[in-house]
Amino acid sequence: MPDTDAPRATPAAMPIALDAMGGDHAPDEIVAGAVQAVREHGIGVLLVGEPRPLHEALSLHGASAEIPIIRAEEALAMDEGALASLRRPRSSIAVACHLVRRGDASAVVSAGSTAGIVATGKLRLRSQQGVLRPAIAVALPTLPTPTILLDAGANAEVKPETLVQFAHLGAAYAETALRIENPRVGLLTIGSEPEKGNKLVKRAHELLSAAPGLNFVGNIEGHDLLTGVVDVIVTDGFTGNVALKTMEGSVRYAFSELRETIQESRTARIGGLLQRKRIRQLHQRLDPEVHGGAVLLGLNGTVVIAHGASQAKGVSAACVLATELARHGVVNRIGERLAASHRPHRLW
Amino acid sequence: MPDTDAPRATPAAMPIALDAMGGDHAPDEIVAGAVQAVREHGIGVLLVGEPRPLHEALSLHGASAEIPIIRAEEALAMDEGALASLRRPRSSIAVACHLVRRGDASAVVSAGSTAGIVATGKLRLRSQQGVLRPAIAVALPTLPTPTILLDAGANAEVKPETLVQFAHLGAAYAETALRIENPRVGLLTIGSEPEKGNKLVKRAHELLSAAPGLNFVGNIEGHDLLTGVVDVIVTDGFTGNVALKTMEGSVRYAFSELRETIQESRTARIGGLLQRKRIRQLHQRLDPEVHGGAVLLGLNGTVVIAHGASQAKGVSAACVLATELARHGVVNRIGERLAASHRPHRLW
Repeated sequence: MPDTDAPRATPAAMPIALDAMGGDHAPDEIVAGAVQAVREHGIGVLLVGEPRPLHEALSLHGASAEIPIIRAEEALAMDEGALASLRRPRSSIAVACHLVRRGDASAVVSAGSTAGIVATGKLRLRSQQGVLRPAIAVALPTLPTPTILLDAGANAEVKPETLVQFAHLGAAYAETALRIENPRVGLLTIGSEPEKGNKLVKRAHELLSAAPGLNFVGNIEGHDLLTGVVDVIVTDGFTGNVALKTMEGSVRYAFSELRETIQESRTARIGGLLQRKRIRQLHQRLDPEVHGGAVLLGLNGTVVIAHGASQAKGVSAACVLATELARHGVVNRIGERLAASHRPHRLW
Repeated sequence: MPDTDAPRATPAAMPIALDAMGGDHAPDEIVAGAVQAVREHGIGVLLVGEPRPLHEALSLHGASAEIPIIRAEEALAMDEGALASLRRPRSSIAVACHLVRRGDASAVVSAGSTAGIVATGKLRLRSQQGVLRPAIAVALPTLPTPTILLDAGANAEVKPETLVQFAHLGAAYAETALRIENPRVGLLTIGSEPEKGNKLVKRAHELLSAAPGLNFVGNIEGHDLLTGVVDVIVTDGFTGNVALKTMEGSVRYAFSELRETIQESRTARIGGLLQRKRIRQLHQRLDPEVHGGAVLLGLNGTVVIAHGASQAKGVSAACVLATELARHGVVNRIGERLAASHRPHRLW
């Protein structure tokens, strides 16, 4: 692929298409996030949505001159799912996808309904050549580098072959946005031995073991999600979504229990006061808002799904993530990986 | 079932059959746990295993007169799975099951390999009449009462009908050992709407909604595991195992992060010292060892699977749980529920 480097270089200059109408706190917090992204991170942003409220919000930040507005008459409500995206060809998320399709933006960022973003993205950007199923990837807060988990919910039902593709999608994410070389791939199941699991993962284990171009290190289990033993965790969208929400709920639970514990005794309360700042910093690191959000991989364009409850901080983090993915050419890298994985095996 | 109450009363008097050879710290910690169960909780215990080491361990506690030893020549190694249980008819776990079968013990407790216990239990105790698949149930540390999650790993592949039976098994656990009336049952999936999920849970949702004798409250998600919104969480053994291990790993992660945070700064360290005791207490509440372990439901006898790494505390907690389940007749209650669920619907 000789033309790989050219498109890989260009997107950096291009702005992000930010869906200003999606999210619980749209448009105000979205606009505030755009201003943060532009001023603190030097990212170019196109705000997509209804011009009047966006103009008003921008002027509050004195940023009308810094951030262009692209008109979109409609918006997908947070409770609208896949079907609505078909009925709204001029929705802010559809227009944002169109900007990427046309080459006027390097990536889409939206805090709208996940189902709506996935459906609109598939419809407007289409799947990359050779991609069976686009998948949602999230970055788990492991150290020193995050661990990519996919699919986090786009495909409740998949084939073993699809899980092999997810491995390539996730590896491309790790290679580009996280600069991890030869990322270690693990298969999420219920035991370390190859024969452990359901029919889907048993077959997927065989395929992953034989797949060229993948650094497959074997099965992992639920308690490995946050230990950083692998760089990419592959699973179906049902299991991945349950695991992700269980992780978030458990961490939240541990912290709330901790708060109660601190308030129980006076001495402990003093201790709590002393370290309140530290705890808040830690809590922030585990907060989905700061990870930058989920990424819809496998389309002809980068789409970042920010948390629906995102405030300015979360929106700007999502713009940073989208810029990183686009600048380092995650879409091209996925194309390269899938092309290589389809090359016939040499027998000599 | 007129004979329901009689057997429900009797088991209380009967001792627990404790597999003394299973677990990472067998037999010493198992024996120590037996002594705790007898002396602190007034539970009758039969120690099953190799007489000589058990005699020695008991005499260290001066408990030789309090706890009888039942000879078993063999033991299942922790890494031995289902097949081994067939080759070892005289293994300590097999003999323990035999004692329950014969009516000499009210329940089995083992910290041995889960696969071995499940296989041996199915073989020696057999499934209860009408039970499609025995399941492993765990108690999640919710307040005011624990939440029962099943299947935690016995069946990686199940049918929708099996999930309905799991609901009855879990409800019987909640009714008997936890004294929860009309327990609320939730189905673990990836969205609150009935149509959310994979084929298995969509069909299971329909069946659960129509099932007589179940207080089915609908779908729940991963972040609901520790919020106590339901009393029983139904899922397949693959999803359940991933969710459970993800929960344990996430809580462990949050606490280790917390420790580091406390050690980072001097002031915070002082705070840490002040509340170290509180944190330890909290950590204990979330520690699987104190829950008493998992329960294999659906067999003609109560089987409690203690954590493989159980020390004395965990073993005695498992004996307490086994006694509670047996005393309140969980096996009979499951039989009653399944019988009722099979009664033809009245149309008038």
